[in-house]
Amino acid sequence: MTTKPWTLDDCARHYPPAGVQGITVWRQHLEGHIPQHAGDRLRDAGLDIISLCRGGFFPAPTAAERQLAIDDNLLAIEQAHGLGTPMIVLVCGAHPGVPLPEARQQIADGIAAILPVAQQAGIKLAIEPLHPMYAGDRSAINTLAQANAVIDQLHSPKNLGIALDVYHVWWDETLQSQIELTAKHDRLYAFHICDWKTPTLDLLNDRGLMGEGCIPIMQIKTWVNQTGFTGPDEVEIFSTHYWSIDQHDYLKKITQSYQQLTTM
Amino acid sequence: MTTKPWTLDDCARHYPPAGVQGITVWRQHLEGHIPQHAGDRLRDAGLDIISLCRGGFFPAPTAAERQLAIDDNLLAIEQAHGLGTPMIVLVCGAHPGVPLPEARQQIADGIAAILPVAQQAGIKLAIEPLHPMYAGDRSAINTLAQANAVIDQLHSPKNLGIALDVYHVWWDETLQSQIELTAKHDRLYAFHICDWKTPTLDLLNDRGLMGEGCIPIMQIKTWVNQTGFTGPDEVEIFSTHYWSIDQHDYLKKITQSYQQLTTM
Repeated sequence: MTTKPWTLDDCARHYPPAGVQGITVWRQHLEGHIPQHAGDRLRDAGLDIISLCRGGFFPAPTAAERQLAIDDNLLAIEQAHGLGTPMIVLVCGAHPGVPLPEARQQIADGIAAILPVAQQAGIKLAIEPLHPMYAGDRSAINTLAQANAVIDQLHSPKNLGIALDVYHVWWDETLQSQIELTAKHDRLYAFHICDWKTPTLDLLNDRGLMGEGCIPIMQIKTWVNQTGFTGPDEVEIFSTHYWSIDQHDYLKKITQSYQQLTTM
Repeated sequence: MTTKPWTLDDCARHYPPAGVQGITVWRQHLEGHIPQHAGDRLRDAGLDIISLCRGGFFPAPTAAERQLAIDDNLLAIEQAHGLGTPMIVLVCGAHPGVPLPEARQQIADGIAAILPVAQQAGIKLAIEPLHPMYAGDRSAINTLAQANAVIDQLHSPKNLGIALDVYHVWWDETLQSQIELTAKHDRLYAFHICDWKTPTLDLLNDRGLMGEGCIPIMQIKTWVNQTGFTGPDEVEIFSTHYWSIDQHDYLKKITQSYQQLTTM
């Protein structure tokens, strides 16, 4: 999604020569593909398929709608299995008509409904806490503490963990202590990076390259690695601006900003 | 600021007949006015002058810049005194180059520097926690808990409290308990309402009329009133859309949506 204008095949061709070793596949990019073939193509190119994005969106005003959401998540598990990725990222959902505490309970119920199927398929589920500016319509899980609480409430299942994106959680003063909590349960599954620009001109698609904003990315990365996390640093940038420029130039900017970040 | 296209004189003429009993004056609207004259004009029209907006913006990379901010806040106290309002709302500030914990300390230091002068002038200072989407450049105080903590750190001065705006804090699961904490110290000074639209198209100027969004305004108002708060409900809407329509029609929409909210 970071290089949204590119097809999966473009990514397979252009990521590895640029030094990018893995990819998270968004479900809309699987349309028209047999997941297993898409997975083979990416693997043959040398890419790790880190996760499928995204399941979730559980809360809804009616039980029928919530069942539709569960069915869609079961489909995502099938797709992930076909694609050959070990993980699905959950954007848990929120609905303007559902109070947030109720939405969080519906999220717990939804996850509980799909967990056994995911486990059988060997798929891990990663709850991604979303920035509070998405509490209205995208996720009622807006802090790492709330993600930890949902997993606790479900008795820490073996295949339920967290995808941590610095963009969503950097502002939170409890972040370090909540990251430390994930270590105790070995539940930190994914780590996403980008930067928060000032000013930010769009709620969705104005993320910055690492170094373009004010997020203390390396400090958060240090806390994450101290938990024992050995997964990749996934660059996830949604940007109308960067999607509008030559994607090869953009990919070069990404790898350069990552190198600058990690060698500072 | 809610009816931004109007001058203070327009507000003095049009608010009272619409049933609006008070006003918070933003400092830019005092430009070209002698504060005392502006205050007299508003009072003569029958309006309470609830507060002056805004002081704050304390954090900065250098001591010289921080002193400039303190000087500007001292000027705000003079203006508030002249205007004849008992309160200044503080948007505390944040700076992309200053880590958030450091910014919070600079905020505490800045407030401590101006508190005695405010006290002498009979002016209360109200810290307004801002939504985490403003943590990059507008405020490092992003939760009611952080506002309470800064006031605790300064040993709960008699003239330091909180301005609570539902727009900034509605998503926070600790909101109710933190509102209850303000009651113990009698430090809830102001209550602002509007609504959070889904989708929200702009980080600054896309607030909704009460009822246009997903904030449980009456629930929060109940918690606020349970603290013993007897101040006004202040409608604070920043909206490029509503600023572009006839302001009389807009004012009618505001009073209607407030009536619908409070008679539901």
